[in-house]
Amino acid sequence: MSQIKVVISGFGNVGRGVVESIKRNSDMKLVGILSRNPDRVRREVGDVAVLNVNDTDTWLKEFAPDVVILCGGSKNDLPEWGPKMAKLVNTVDSFDNHSRVPEYFAEMDKAALESGHVSVISTGWDPGIFSLERVLAGAFIPGARAYGFYGLGEKGGLSMGHSDALRTIKGVKDARQYTHAIPEAIDEIRAGKNPQFQPGDMHTRECFVVAEEGADKDEIVKTIKEMPGYFAPYKTNVTFVSQEELDSKYAGFPHDGLAIAAGTTGNGNSARVEYRCVWGSNPEATANVLVAHARAVARLAKEGKSGAMTILDIPASYFTNLDRAELLKHWI
Amino acid sequence: MSQIKVVISGFGNVGRGVVESIKRNSDMKLVGILSRNPDRVRREVGDVAVLNVNDTDTWLKEFAPDVVILCGGSKNDLPEWGPKMAKLVNTVDSFDNHSRVPEYFAEMDKAALESGHVSVISTGWDPGIFSLERVLAGAFIPGARAYGFYGLGEKGGLSMGHSDALRTIKGVKDARQYTHAIPEAIDEIRAGKNPQFQPGDMHTRECFVVAEEGADKDEIVKTIKEMPGYFAPYKTNVTFVSQEELDSKYAGFPHDGLAIAAGTTGNGNSARVEYRCVWGSNPEATANVLVAHARAVARLAKEGKSGAMTILDIPASYFTNLDRAELLKHWI
Repeated sequence: MSQIKVVISGFGNVGRGVVESIKRNSDMKLVGILSRNPDRVRREVGDVAVLNVNDTDTWLKEFAPDVVILCGGSKNDLPEWGPKMAKLVNTVDSFDNHSRVPEYFAEMDKAALESGHVSVISTGWDPGIFSLERVLAGAFIPGARAYGFYGLGEKGGLSMGHSDALRTIKGVKDARQYTHAIPEAIDEIRAGKNPQFQPGDMHTRECFVVAEEGADKDEIVKTIKEMPGYFAPYKTNVTFVSQEELDSKYAGFPHDGLAIAAGTTGNGNSARVEYRCVWGSNPEATANVLVAHARAVARLAKEGKSGAMTILDIPASYFTNLDRAELLKHWI
Repeated sequence: MSQIKVVISGFGNVGRGVVESIKRNSDMKLVGILSRNPDRVRREVGDVAVLNVNDTDTWLKEFAPDVVILCGGSKNDLPEWGPKMAKLVNTVDSFDNHSRVPEYFAEMDKAALESGHVSVISTGWDPGIFSLERVLAGAFIPGARAYGFYGLGEKGGLSMGHSDALRTIKGVKDARQYTHAIPEAIDEIRAGKNPQFQPGDMHTRECFVVAEEGADKDEIVKTIKEMPGYFAPYKTNVTFVSQEELDSKYAGFPHDGLAIAAGTTGNGNSARVEYRCVWGSNPEATANVLVAHARAVARLAKEGKSGAMTILDIPASYFTNLDRAELLKHWI
């Protein structure tokens, strides 16, 4: 069987992860990378063809991809590039602005339906696997509320979005933000209390900040703690460190999480499910999930399907390279 | 929208759980129960119609079910009744003889395809949710082996199959078997060693046995420990107790499990997923999963699908009563 031809559009940490992930999936092949700055990417990846994303005719012809994995950011890149790409090719992306998902889905659905493509949106581990696990938990334990926690390990989990937010503050040279789950909140759920939480009841935020020389540190702390959405709703701790300390102690992109739901069955028997993931590299984990979805997209497109979809619309057998006989024999 | 009409065939612990579960799913309605012994079932459930499963014409007409949940055992009931039923109606079952799944699937597929029905086989929590989680883990962490553990809590998990096996032994009046996971085996997987285990490396078995008066206890212990498949491959502990002690200390059907896989991403970053479930009542948990699948079966049949399927063939959105708009807004 011929390999699925995959193209990466946008080359940051997730794009790098996709390159590595495709190497571990023998049924898939990376045929090229698209970037607004092909020279920069070419210098980094010697052995993969890189073309300018704006030269549409050229890359469509040269790469002829079965699916393009969109690795841009959710704030500016995907709202602009998602629908453009969905008109041209089958796509997968990790759009993660939860509140704007319905709107983004509608735009992608329109573009993909009109052009006869398949576009899977908002996948990765959250949104993505965690969305799936929340829905399954709700279906299998009717009445149980499903919760998501992040940063359960000792060090917590690095939030790229919150780190970026810190770096926008005046006087901040560099920064990294670790999210910590509040263990007592998890205990309450495990005890079957189905609690109603505010965001600040579930997580705290720990900020490691490198200040610019002469910056007003008190002002920085105040600005962080009062930042709406990002930090104001949470107990937030700010520690100033040197650039060296930040680079050595807080390197990498570790993250982890827990999707959990608890309720009862019958006459009050307890029922609880927990999905836990622990990633040494958050962007590489996201990349792995995107690549498995790229396989699903290629298959769905081959079957003649079109339109936007999420992880909730795809059977698990589409994500794996194993065939039905193997699945029935060894995996059921 | 009209409710999905569900019929239960076979009324044991799982069937009882289905009755309770349907009450918690407002889009579904229990229209009747089928049994080979309707009088016994009628005495237990006053308010539900019960008909003889052999009076096919009668119950097909009176119940006109959208889907029948087959709650019989995997050893004798399902191999006989599964294909018979699949010719008549849409079905869901929890066939759990892992090694015979391919053969059972083929028979159910033939019957369902010929008659234009949908038959979901082998669902519950294992096989079922755990099958799904193993496949997802393997797809999202290529190269990671997926493992299943049972009985992680202090008391372990009650195995109905192994309890039944104990009760077949000469001199055994009653018995219950608790499975215990070996924590060190889980540690090895978490450490990313991807170990190759024999069954006895993962679990031990604890048997509480009520002996008949005058029975040869040494002989009972020997028979248990040498029973192929069930106990011989495991470290097995046998404790003789009185019937009173068995009834008071070892009542109910608690069970729990862990599906786990660990591997790496990129240049050796660790990646691990764990799905944990803890059930106060194993048969009620199985019933909940069967009912969610009954919803999926009714929808798939309405779409004109036919043939046998497993949990791996069904998108998560089919298991829930939430519509797409709600899922996109609150669950992705």
